[in-house]
Amino acid sequence: MPPPPPPFSSSSLLTRIASSTPLASLFSTSRLFSSPPPSPTSSPAMDRAAADDSLRKALAERQAAVDAQGNAVRALKAGKAPKPEIEAAIAELNRLKIDKAGVEKQLQAAVSGAAAGEGALTREAFRRLVANTLERRLFYIPSFKIYGGVAGLYDYGPPGCEVKSNVLAFWRQHFVREEEMLEVDCSCVTLETVLKASGHVDKFTDLMVKDEKTGTCYRADHLLKDFCNEKLQKDLSISAEKAAELKHVLATLDDLSADELGAKIKEYGITAPETKNPLSDPYPFNLMFQTSIGPSGLLPGYMRPETAQGIFVNFKDLYYYNGNKLPFAAAQIGLAFRNEISPRQGLLRVREFTLAEIEHFVDPEDKSHAKFSQVADLEFFMFPREQQMSGQAATKTRLGEAVSKGTVNNETLGFFIGRVYLFLTCLGIDKDRLRFRQHLANEMAHYAADCWDAEIECSYGWIECVGIADRSAYDLRAHTEKSGVALVAHEKFAEPREVEKLVIAPNKKELGLAFKGNQKMVIESLEVMGEEEALQLKAALESKGEAEFLVCTMGKSVIMKDNMVKISKQKIKEHQRVFTPSVIEPSFGIGRIIYCLFEHSFYTRPSKAGDEQLNVFRFPPLVAPIKCTVFPLIQKQEYESVAQLISRSLTLAGVSNKIDITGNTIGKRYARTDELGVPFAITVDSQVDVTIRERDSKDQVRVSVGEAASVVKELIDGHRTWSDIWSSFPHHASASAEEDE
Amino acid sequence: MPPPPPPFSSSSLLTRIASSTPLASLFSTSRLFSSPPPSPTSSPAMDRAAADDSLRKALAERQAAVDAQGNAVRALKAGKAPKPEIEAAIAELNRLKIDKAGVEKQLQAAVSGAAAGEGALTREAFRRLVANTLERRLFYIPSFKIYGGVAGLYDYGPPGCEVKSNVLAFWRQHFVREEEMLEVDCSCVTLETVLKASGHVDKFTDLMVKDEKTGTCYRADHLLKDFCNEKLQKDLSISAEKAAELKHVLATLDDLSADELGAKIKEYGITAPETKNPLSDPYPFNLMFQTSIGPSGLLPGYMRPETAQGIFVNFKDLYYYNGNKLPFAAAQIGLAFRNEISPRQGLLRVREFTLAEIEHFVDPEDKSHAKFSQVADLEFFMFPREQQMSGQAATKTRLGEAVSKGTVNNETLGFFIGRVYLFLTCLGIDKDRLRFRQHLANEMAHYAADCWDAEIECSYGWIECVGIADRSAYDLRAHTEKSGVALVAHEKFAEPREVEKLVIAPNKKELGLAFKGNQKMVIESLEVMGEEEALQLKAALESKGEAEFLVCTMGKSVIMKDNMVKISKQKIKEHQRVFTPSVIEPSFGIGRIIYCLFEHSFYTRPSKAGDEQLNVFRFPPLVAPIKCTVFPLIQKQEYESVAQLISRSLTLAGVSNKIDITGNTIGKRYARTDELGVPFAITVDSQVDVTIRERDSKDQVRVSVGEAASVVKELIDGHRTWSDIWSSFPHHASASAEEDE
Repeated sequence: MPPPPPPFSSSSLLTRIASSTPLASLFSTSRLFSSPPPSPTSSPAMDRAAADDSLRKALAERQAAVDAQGNAVRALKAGKAPKPEIEAAIAELNRLKIDKAGVEKQLQAAVSGAAAGEGALTREAFRRLVANTLERRLFYIPSFKIYGGVAGLYDYGPPGCEVKSNVLAFWRQHFVREEEMLEVDCSCVTLETVLKASGHVDKFTDLMVKDEKTGTCYRADHLLKDFCNEKLQKDLSISAEKAAELKHVLATLDDLSADELGAKIKEYGITAPETKNPLSDPYPFNLMFQTSIGPSGLLPGYMRPETAQGIFVNFKDLYYYNGNKLPFAAAQIGLAFRNEISPRQGLLRVREFTLAEIEHFVDPEDKSHAKFSQVADLEFFMFPREQQMSGQAATKTRLGEAVSKGTVNNETLGFFIGRVYLFLTCLGIDKDRLRFRQHLANEMAHYAADCWDAEIECSYGWIECVGIADRSAYDLRAHTEKSGVALVAHEKFAEPREVEKLVIAPNKKELGLAFKGNQKMVIESLEVMGEEEALQLKAALESKGEAEFLVCTMGKSVIMKDNMVKISKQKIKEHQRVFTPSVIEPSFGIGRIIYCLFEHSFYTRPSKAGDEQLNVFRFPPLVAPIKCTVFPLIQKQEYESVAQLISRSLTLAGVSNKIDITGNTIGKRYARTDELGVPFAITVDSQVDVTIRERDSKDQVRVSVGEAASVVKELIDGHRTWSDIWSSFPHHASASAEEDE
Repeated sequence: MPPPPPPFSSSSLLTRIASSTPLASLFSTSRLFSSPPPSPTSSPAMDRAAADDSLRKALAERQAAVDAQGNAVRALKAGKAPKPEIEAAIAELNRLKIDKAGVEKQLQAAVSGAAAGEGALTREAFRRLVANTLERRLFYIPSFKIYGGVAGLYDYGPPGCEVKSNVLAFWRQHFVREEEMLEVDCSCVTLETVLKASGHVDKFTDLMVKDEKTGTCYRADHLLKDFCNEKLQKDLSISAEKAAELKHVLATLDDLSADELGAKIKEYGITAPETKNPLSDPYPFNLMFQTSIGPSGLLPGYMRPETAQGIFVNFKDLYYYNGNKLPFAAAQIGLAFRNEISPRQGLLRVREFTLAEIEHFVDPEDKSHAKFSQVADLEFFMFPREQQMSGQAATKTRLGEAVSKGTVNNETLGFFIGRVYLFLTCLGIDKDRLRFRQHLANEMAHYAADCWDAEIECSYGWIECVGIADRSAYDLRAHTEKSGVALVAHEKFAEPREVEKLVIAPNKKELGLAFKGNQKMVIESLEVMGEEEALQLKAALESKGEAEFLVCTMGKSVIMKDNMVKISKQKIKEHQRVFTPSVIEPSFGIGRIIYCLFEHSFYTRPSKAGDEQLNVFRFPPLVAPIKCTVFPLIQKQEYESVAQLISRSLTLAGVSNKIDITGNTIGKRYARTDELGVPFAITVDSQVDVTIRERDSKDQVRVSVGEAASVVKELIDGHRTWSDIWSSFPHHASASAEEDE
């Protein structure tokens, strides 16, 4: 029987927002605006959902009370009741209305993600504030902006480009160097055959609907999602039951077939958002950018939708390069392209993005990992399948325990989960807004052994940023089959082993006589029999001399006689074991990680005068686009020369830095660099000593001109911490005074 | 008058082999196989071309002599001359034949690029040797190899990927950091409008011919080039005149129009290489990979053919980011895609490649460069236009002199030429096989002020690896015009300046009465008049009251009367100057540089036993894919632990290293790492001291276990040289003995 159609690589899920908890985790603004160090507490999604439910019920009760009292007032008026009685009833009605309005407000706040309370920002407002800062300071720019731009394409401007290259350099150090991976760099333009084998040509699709009059295209699930969300957020009058139904639709959105999606769209009367025209039925659209290789137009190609396939097709050479030894990992950083139907969510869903992927090849019979003990004691939020199904929240779990209990399938998968946790938190991702969520059975490919997503919470909800999947032997087998090149590993035995093997020997002559032109199909069916089936056939042939035998490719059974096939178990000596390695694949959406990093690093603090809020990115030095700024305190040639000298030393030491010799006040200059996330600033106010200021504490120390660059270098490299420096050098007293000079 | 159609960005030339000296520089093998440090001498192309010419003439003379003597012998035989006389004549004929064969051999050697002499390798053989090593050691792999591959697509395997990332990291340090450039990272998928404006949609084409029966496509110029080269190399009987004609065709190949190319192909009777079928006429094929953005199919897009356009369209934001100040440079490293018709030349002409481009924006009225003095004293091979035209060779020139004499158009262009020289030679490009060649007038875009290519000599000839062009204001103007967004710079005057400006004020009422529907065209013509033309018209109107006036868009002259237009010079106060900056563009073909680096770094040396030639890449530490290998001398647990310890220290210090604990002889292990270009090897043969071996000298020193990693780190970072180490540590005596142990 042919296997079910192959789903595409799990990394393709990277562009999908985890949809199982779409309304989970309403924002607590106190967390967004806390000053460093942040100490947010985890807020379990399920608690909030329950609160939401009870608010809806309370609101319905209040509404009923208002209605009842309204009727009572009308009855009193109709019955010409005494005026004081009517007035008292009206007063009670007003009280009930106020009461209802209060509950309404609470529910409104809950569904729109804002915490109740003064000065609270909704998550949308927070997102706008961050986006505004990012665009204004050129962290990113919509591509081809002067031509109106295109949805889903963004350029990284200078600070964004620096952040990206810092993140990638750290990725290379943390994974490739530390784990001695084989890094490769493969073509983006990809032969159709490769993506046929991987399943992308046939299966890498999203369901699309068209405005039947204008032809504008939409993602079918997006329209349904928007409808449900809007209904839940804006229409407070819907019953708790209706709300539950809509939430169920949201939770199962990814599982809906084209027909089911179409039916829901019809049921809810959803129309095209701009025109309100009717919509077509949903149909699949392949998300790969197609092109043609060479001038003939006969060789179709695609821009790769992931980097993994480049590694799989090179497995044989890489295995050889590694001395024909397992386990080993290959890694690749590179662009991937997905022609999204209608990209939204800014930097999170784009048509061109950088992936960093690891394919760790391992013997399927031994998935232990030599270095697992190094990460076993890490503790972080894990969200296993069972907890999701039973409505519990993610809990802090010791990784070693999750593996030993079997929650995480094997040590190698566990090892990578631990390394991913370290990677993300070193970059500055808030560990309390990071969780590892296990795929539900319906999310996972049929061949996958286990799959965990590193999800990061940001203003868009919980975002899948890294997928870590045990994909078993699926990919290598698919390319072995299609290319005819065996992508396998060998284990040489120290001594030959005697093994019992089933041998199926068709008698071609007899089969030819009996089945003529169908002979080949019969032989194939015989050869692919499983052990159990073969032994049953053997028994039947031995006892009855003939047996019915199903030939799938002919679609019917034939009569097999005992002279047509010899089935036996033989002992043979094997010198090696040949097998297809399993692959464990951590796949990083670099752009998504960076975007979440932007949100987690952003905070505001009042200016000294208190008249405005200043923006700060609390990037760690590792990530900061510029590590240090150098300012002459005032415009003076001597100070400028010293500043140039220090800047030059920093550059030679490989520390990216920027001189600011504008005549702006020092406070303005600090504010400007805080907004770029520059961790340290050197201010030159003498030719002997200078001050070094730390961004988040705003503390300043006095350091000699000669030492300044090397002190900053040590801070940047992590050889000394700010508190080391703070305790080693004289403090600068006039620090805060200068900020708003 | 409309300007001539805009040629595409000069960087597009990066995929073209400089064709003006296609047969220049036959290889002197002694250079290829010299042991480090190499000290090749420059071999002027023109000398060789002259030698080739005189050999052809000599060969024709010898052939004539052989023919004459043959006739004489036949005449003697026919005349029944005495036997001794005939025998003497035959002996002379044989002498002449041997003489001719000698000349023929010399010519053959000259045209095929082999130096005469024993053991010499032809350039093809050398190339095969390098390519074999590169492929076997996985520096690169043909993409999708298990599916048969695709011409022009290659993957970098582990060592190639490391070399590439080292080259890019150094590029970033040498250019972006040192010159404080604004690095950006823009989309590869590009809107058609952008590439319409840049001229790529209309002009980025190569001429193609098709096999008229099979439809197979070929580059028309390639077929003509192959024909000429083959004729010159294989048919030694052609006259010096014919040879000169073919060489002229080769030299002017890039200038031939479709018609001229077609005529040559017909004249020479060139047919399809495989089938010998007739060929179609040449026609243009656009080299961009086309695709479609979004699902509607209505938004055409292309994979960018260069990275430069991403910078140009972002100019306005970048200028603002730079505090609205000139000069500044933006830089970008990224992929570019060109759908070559039939890629050849391995890694040099590929369909997907990494470009690193700088766009340095500068005031067109001041192209001086503050740091020019830092590079002015550099001396290297320059090949100005005049020297190419007059048949002279490239000469060593002081950069400062080339700029002061005006050979190089301006200081900024000169500065970048100097920085490119430093960049390439630091990587390990042989300075004697590197030259800066100025574009000839016919190679340069009409708007370009000057253009120099850094060309590197390898087995394919002189290869353009970096283009350094002063593109004037062309690109920014093109996008200003198309987008309607002014991509300009401002220079604020300290005090307002009084300037005299020509003011042309058409009288619309009178013009409307006179020209009715043509009024608009007349007004446009009036407004675009140059100063001189306007003043002539003014004079004519003032003296005669009317004048003839040519309206281009109407294709005829009209009679202009003095009441129809007022032309005057007025003094006005200007507070700032608004202008389109010039752009100076150094554009690096990273893959080409890396390939040339491979060839320049490769050499062989005999094994100790003398029974084989061992391959070595003499990469500098900066470039080497792995900086250090660590070997236990023999398989012993104590040594292995020490090796692990040292390896771990190296990794923590960011030094890429590899442990080899195989049981191979130390000689085999050294040979294996030499072939990967690993500069240093640490061999562990005690728990106290270890040896460090330098790759090229094979010298070894003894260093304590604790110091080993830090010594290597200092060597890698360039803080100490090998000779420092050699003079500071005890030498290891048994060094050479161990090599072939």
